[in-house]
Amino acid sequence: MVRPRTSTFVMKRILSGIKPTGKPHIGNYFGMMRPAIEWQDKGEAFYFIADYHALTTVFDPVKLREYSRGVALDFLACGLDPAKAVLFRQSDVPAHTELAWLLSCQTPMPMLENAHAYKDHLAKEKTPSHGLFAYPVLMAADILIYDSDVVPVGKDQKQHVEITRDLATKMNGIYGPIFKVPEASILPTVATIPGLDGQKMSKSYDNTIELFLEEKALKKKIMGIVTDSTPVEEPKDPATSSIVALYRFFVPETDVEKMEADFRAGGVGYGDFKKRLFGAIWEYFSSMRIKRAELAADPGYVDAVLKAGAERASSTANQVMERVRKAVGLRG
Amino acid sequence: MVRPRTSTFVMKRILSGIKPTGKPHIGNYFGMMRPAIEWQDKGEAFYFIADYHALTTVFDPVKLREYSRGVALDFLACGLDPAKAVLFRQSDVPAHTELAWLLSCQTPMPMLENAHAYKDHLAKEKTPSHGLFAYPVLMAADILIYDSDVVPVGKDQKQHVEITRDLATKMNGIYGPIFKVPEASILPTVATIPGLDGQKMSKSYDNTIELFLEEKALKKKIMGIVTDSTPVEEPKDPATSSIVALYRFFVPETDVEKMEADFRAGGVGYGDFKKRLFGAIWEYFSSMRIKRAELAADPGYVDAVLKAGAERASSTANQVMERVRKAVGLRG
Repeated sequence: MVRPRTSTFVMKRILSGIKPTGKPHIGNYFGMMRPAIEWQDKGEAFYFIADYHALTTVFDPVKLREYSRGVALDFLACGLDPAKAVLFRQSDVPAHTELAWLLSCQTPMPMLENAHAYKDHLAKEKTPSHGLFAYPVLMAADILIYDSDVVPVGKDQKQHVEITRDLATKMNGIYGPIFKVPEASILPTVATIPGLDGQKMSKSYDNTIELFLEEKALKKKIMGIVTDSTPVEEPKDPATSSIVALYRFFVPETDVEKMEADFRAGGVGYGDFKKRLFGAIWEYFSSMRIKRAELAADPGYVDAVLKAGAERASSTANQVMERVRKAVGLRG
Repeated sequence: MVRPRTSTFVMKRILSGIKPTGKPHIGNYFGMMRPAIEWQDKGEAFYFIADYHALTTVFDPVKLREYSRGVALDFLACGLDPAKAVLFRQSDVPAHTELAWLLSCQTPMPMLENAHAYKDHLAKEKTPSHGLFAYPVLMAADILIYDSDVVPVGKDQKQHVEITRDLATKMNGIYGPIFKVPEASILPTVATIPGLDGQKMSKSYDNTIELFLEEKALKKKIMGIVTDSTPVEEPKDPATSSIVALYRFFVPETDVEKMEADFRAGGVGYGDFKKRLFGAIWEYFSSMRIKRAELAADPGYVDAVLKAGAERASSTANQVMERVRKAVGLRG
């Protein structure tokens, strides 16, 4: 039996995914995309556009195609280097779903019934689909099929890596050492990026700021950040302000201190602070915006990147799957 | 969009599967294999060895391989003609699992929670796996991925075809006409083949008679059929006897009438009736037994049949999947 790679002789393999359920926003950027771009120099990075997962909520094929392409384009514009990291569409490696089935046969129902995300769905009195119920198993397959060493996730995703570890360990117990048991790497900042309403920035709260909005649309979004009604002349509390919390991500510490001081001094209204924030965001993404326009001008480029990524990802996934198929008895 | 085939110009496509969870038995033969062999002349037949499904209960890879091969060999020995019917292993067409995922995203949880088989598992206070819970979705994918027209099933499987029809109809409503909605063809005899204990013959009751037992082993099984303790000399009731019920499958009606008369007359013991049944079964499978030995002598034959079957099945499945992937937005 071919055993999983050991980490002694190879670079760590990093696995991360982004769900194409809309246009990438500032929460995605700092929570997943920027760290992913940093890691591409530190390990063997596999980044996938989780279109199978998106199907649990995006039922419009035109939108799904647009979002999947958009995520790839934004990721490349932000600095993802396809020569370093493997960027691919999940559905270009359908073996993810095959492995999910094999794992399902060893997944006790309570493991899924007790998953936070599913309980949240039930609590909201929705009738969830089987896809929403089963997605932690697909996620485990996403991770295990690349012999991933490290899975960087936000706190809210930690349980998924735990489920993955449990399933890998269980399968290894039954069939021998077929899976590498991955580690979660918890990203402390993910949960702290506030959206327009002060809650965590998330598509599900409809409070996001997309990365590559037109100037006017971005300004409108920023001006729509919810604030209290403290009058212009009075002092304001920087510690509780989403404006300051967001500003922090885009400017050096000295600029943050200046804004905090201006908050406390009074005499500046929220509108002015929002304009300052808008300027910082617009500036921060300016070079990426230029790159994005260049990439978008070559319609074949994104396709070529995804095709090459699919080939590299498939090659690794197929090796792991052959090992797994043999171990469970599907192959001789 | 490529539409599903319409049945106007083509032969009906028949889809049936058999789960390799043991050696095929007389219940499988009359319930599935013999009808399947008859249909190979009447339509375009796709028959699969459901090894993904077997993984919900067979955790021993050596056994799973043995059972899968054994099912293929037995099927061919019994008269399946690989030039007519497509015989293949489910796991050689992994797109079954991909389609299962796509269907899962539109499967309401109650549809699976209310499935008979799952409720039976819960009633027995077992902790079912997610595979056992989810298998009606995989079964729907098994059927829909071949644009099947007809799915011959026993009464106990009728609900699965209903779930399949519901899912196909729902997907067609969301995405346009991507699936052919199949018809169930209910086999009336399947449930009536008694096992050694008089219950329906089924691996789960451990009351089966395998098709190709050695003479001694077959005799021992038949002699172990449970009977009442009516003495030899007394009349017996043929209507309630498993011996008569089984005998009926192997001999002409006149022989059955003879046995029934001997039951009613008294003077013949159950042991003698069992010997008569043994003789009938042994005779019935004699030419198939010879063919099986011939086929088994060529170790490459079964592999070659399964490989050719996998190619034919994949070709059809891939056409359907390309249509579906486009429709849901995974492809441009």
